[in-house]
Amino acid sequence: MAAQIIKGMPIAENIRKEITADAEKLKAKGIQPKLAVVLVGGNPASVWYAKSKIKVGEKIGVIVELTELPADTKETDLIAFIQKLNQDSSVHGILVELPLPKHIAKEKVMNAILPLKDVDGVTAVNRGYVFGGQDDLALVPATPMSCIELIVRSGIDLKGKRVALVGRGDTVGRPLASLLITRHATVTVCHTRTTDIPSVTKNAEIIVAAAGKRGLVTKDMVSPGTVVIDAGINEITKEDGTTTIVGDVDFDKVQEVASLITPVPGGVGSLTTSIIMANVLKAIKLQGLA
Amino acid sequence: MAAQIIKGMPIAENIRKEITADAEKLKAKGIQPKLAVVLVGGNPASVWYAKSKIKVGEKIGVIVELTELPADTKETDLIAFIQKLNQDSSVHGILVELPLPKHIAKEKVMNAILPLKDVDGVTAVNRGYVFGGQDDLALVPATPMSCIELIVRSGIDLKGKRVALVGRGDTVGRPLASLLITRHATVTVCHTRTTDIPSVTKNAEIIVAAAGKRGLVTKDMVSPGTVVIDAGINEITKEDGTTTIVGDVDFDKVQEVASLITPVPGGVGSLTTSIIMANVLKAIKLQGLA
Repeated sequence: MAAQIIKGMPIAENIRKEITADAEKLKAKGIQPKLAVVLVGGNPASVWYAKSKIKVGEKIGVIVELTELPADTKETDLIAFIQKLNQDSSVHGILVELPLPKHIAKEKVMNAILPLKDVDGVTAVNRGYVFGGQDDLALVPATPMSCIELIVRSGIDLKGKRVALVGRGDTVGRPLASLLITRHATVTVCHTRTTDIPSVTKNAEIIVAAAGKRGLVTKDMVSPGTVVIDAGINEITKEDGTTTIVGDVDFDKVQEVASLITPVPGGVGSLTTSIIMANVLKAIKLQGLA
Repeated sequence: MAAQIIKGMPIAENIRKEITADAEKLKAKGIQPKLAVVLVGGNPASVWYAKSKIKVGEKIGVIVELTELPADTKETDLIAFIQKLNQDSSVHGILVELPLPKHIAKEKVMNAILPLKDVDGVTAVNRGYVFGGQDDLALVPATPMSCIELIVRSGIDLKGKRVALVGRGDTVGRPLASLLITRHATVTVCHTRTTDIPSVTKNAEIIVAAAGKRGLVTKDMVSPGTVVIDAGINEITKEDGTTTIVGDVDFDKVQEVASLITPVPGGVGSLTTSIIMANVLKAIKLQGLA
């Protein structure tokens, strides 16, 4: 029997409804939620992501203020601009679109963001909270949190479940491992140095692929009835020269054995913007404003 | 065949020799390594740990300055004292002995320590670095780092090894998971909600017990030839009324099947003070002083 496909958008819509209601309550108290998005250089994908945040923000009551800085912006000037946003009390969340131009040290820029406004959880402080299982204090990074929301809002109980997490990157794999452990899953983290990944995935009740490697999870690695969450994003060029994205999972074949499976695009990635917006509202609470 | 017992002290001695040599080089440059230890209230175990740091420091060239504050010290006064140490350029490392009296919020006090002087890796910033696999920037917490040193200095290559880590606490289990993943092990984190811990431990090449539960790892959970590292510390009262500590592993029985095993006491715990001292020297480097 083919797997049930978990689409991201209906779940994102539910999250957006919750945000809209919360944003209205804040506005009634005189607080207008506002996210500052900073874009350095004109990377087309980053521009697209930034603009989509503006659109979503308009629908749900969060002002998204986009600042486009030239590609040759100096690191010190970018950090000074972030510090201005840190001090601006009308700004509740700050997000710097990645990738940054090569002459700018990503780590330095990320840690310049005030942790209480760090709505994509990129600062060491927020990572520390996620790591320590202190989710109540943390602004959790969007992609790993999207995986959690997809699983939980699909009615899957993580408690005691055997999860095989393929990928150990600092953007998705590592924080997701921590979020899963906090939610009482038994997590095995696999990666390029793991000697026998199929033996781990075959023994899992839930597989999360977050390695950024097309075709990594194949049908023979998945036991019947497994839940398969695909957090991979790989850009490929089609025969007609246009580009598209695919995940880490061989979707067409794996769906023949999985019980539930997320598509790419249209799965995990459909939630990230909503999670960022939810983090803006959480940031307002953590800042003691609501 | 009985397991080979990995004793902590000979490994600690090697680490201390390295520190002594490094401390001498620093002194030749005019830098006297100094650790400030803060003790609030007279918990006998904490007093003992603090005094043992002074003794070790004397042997290896690190000045350990102990400040004993009364049990009724206010949280704000303790934080003010830490801030004074943060600003004192002669102090390179700060350690606040735990547990703190109940009226003091541990999390707040820990995060008052300047991350660059946080030699037991208790601040969110250092946790974030460990979590992100950025070990070069991190001051890594002592107990998980002791487990790593015990394994690596016993000649065991972690790359690709299947590690069952039992325990997910924020002091040992969680940071250790991250350190193991960074060192290319395939790590499964088990805990109280794991439905079948023996199936995980039996499949492991290395078991690390860090749950703080006496008798947790029994012989039937360990496959022949497994390396068993015991990071558990459980205080028990003997028949004669005196207290002693035991680990999480049923040592007498498990050593019959393991290939290598660490005792408690005399294993992981024998390294922690030396790791703290090594962190004081690392802190000096991270502070840009050497």
